[in-house]
Amino acid sequence: MPKLRVHNLSISQDGYVAGPDQSLDNPLGIGGEALHTWIFDTDYGRDMMGEQATGTGGLDEDHAIAGDVNIGATIMGRNMFGPVRGEWPDHSWTGWWGPNPPYHHDTFVLTHHPRPTVSMEGGTVFHFVDDAPESVLKRAFESAGGQDVRLGGGSSTVRQFLKAGLVDELHLAVVPILLGAGERLYDDLGTLPGYECTRVESSDRVTHVTFSRTEGNAAESGRSQGL
Amino acid sequence: MPKLRVHNLSISQDGYVAGPDQSLDNPLGIGGEALHTWIFDTDYGRDMMGEQATGTGGLDEDHAIAGDVNIGATIMGRNMFGPVRGEWPDHSWTGWWGPNPPYHHDTFVLTHHPRPTVSMEGGTVFHFVDDAPESVLKRAFESAGGQDVRLGGGSSTVRQFLKAGLVDELHLAVVPILLGAGERLYDDLGTLPGYECTRVESSDRVTHVTFSRTEGNAAESGRSQGL
Repeated sequence: MPKLRVHNLSISQDGYVAGPDQSLDNPLGIGGEALHTWIFDTDYGRDMMGEQATGTGGLDEDHAIAGDVNIGATIMGRNMFGPVRGEWPDHSWTGWWGPNPPYHHDTFVLTHHPRPTVSMEGGTVFHFVDDAPESVLKRAFESAGGQDVRLGGGSSTVRQFLKAGLVDELHLAVVPILLGAGERLYDDLGTLPGYECTRVESSDRVTHVTFSRTEGNAAESGRSQGL
Repeated sequence: MPKLRVHNLSISQDGYVAGPDQSLDNPLGIGGEALHTWIFDTDYGRDMMGEQATGTGGLDEDHAIAGDVNIGATIMGRNMFGPVRGEWPDHSWTGWWGPNPPYHHDTFVLTHHPRPTVSMEGGTVFHFVDDAPESVLKRAFESAGGQDVRLGGGSSTVRQFLKAGLVDELHLAVVPILLGAGERLYDDLGTLPGYECTRVESSDRVTHVTFSRTEGNAAESGRSQGL
């Protein structure tokens, strides 16, 4: 059964995915940058930033890479797609990634301001959708043709799908810092479906914790909800 | 410099120290019991429950024991002392632990309903105090005679001392479960003093995470606040 998977979601020990006082100048909030240095220091991250690989490998590298394996479609929030808020002034913004984004499959961008589909080089097709999580996920599963769907950030997107009971696998990269305040992942999630912790491993930077759903899965939930 | 230390504070991956719907019948809330099974399965926990030791040892055992080392006084909330709420009907309740409690030193119980000091067998003396965290801590440091002070639960007590910036060492036993709702430790803590993570180690039950204060410490803060 295909799954909806979250990978490499960086979170502080006290449950914040961004620090307090987020702004355009400081989109990760005070102290929030420290949540992401671990992945930028992997070769996966260095490649994203156009930097030289180190060949070091290791647990963090393995987790960074694992997030792309067997993924046939991606769902992301609008803030992960770009900095533009509100109505699109025009359709010139096509993501942070240049002409050939690293997805190479149908990528569904959640937005209250839909716009025409954009086909990029390398097979990435951005669809702009203003639908309920269940409907977006149904389309994504169809696109994925039997592979899994990856749920990207931001955290409000992840929270929305968690609340809807649709996440099958949740991989957290727990960074051992206390932010004290900021944007919470674990907010008002209510009754979650059953999850069991299937992996806990610490590098010297991060504790990787993976939860897997024990009851049904997202594809099945979708069907049971008549999707 | 003596320290104020929290040990073996069991918390879910999503930051809850008790599940939702706490009641007299279910004081740990729905699912909350799962936070504490790891310590009851150590010899330290088995001894508390009057059960036979297993001699297994291990990381969880080490952490359970470490919480009692070099402690000269204890501070706890009233709910850790007993189930009685509001005015004390009489002074017959002297804690969960029988005539010889496991503290053997001055133990300060935070309560809005003070009552006379009780001296128990084995050197435990319960003092009932209705003062600000700073004042209670000052008395506890005086009692501890140069040793550290341990801050016991419940979580509202820990939260109160964290908010006051008084905790020097915070050892969390992170249980890899998602409760979804319940009583939060990380609630409205605001700006914390600087902490660095000094240890992260996982057993097959729990990830032990220890934070140590990097700026001043509780005894110094007390002094800087004119205590």
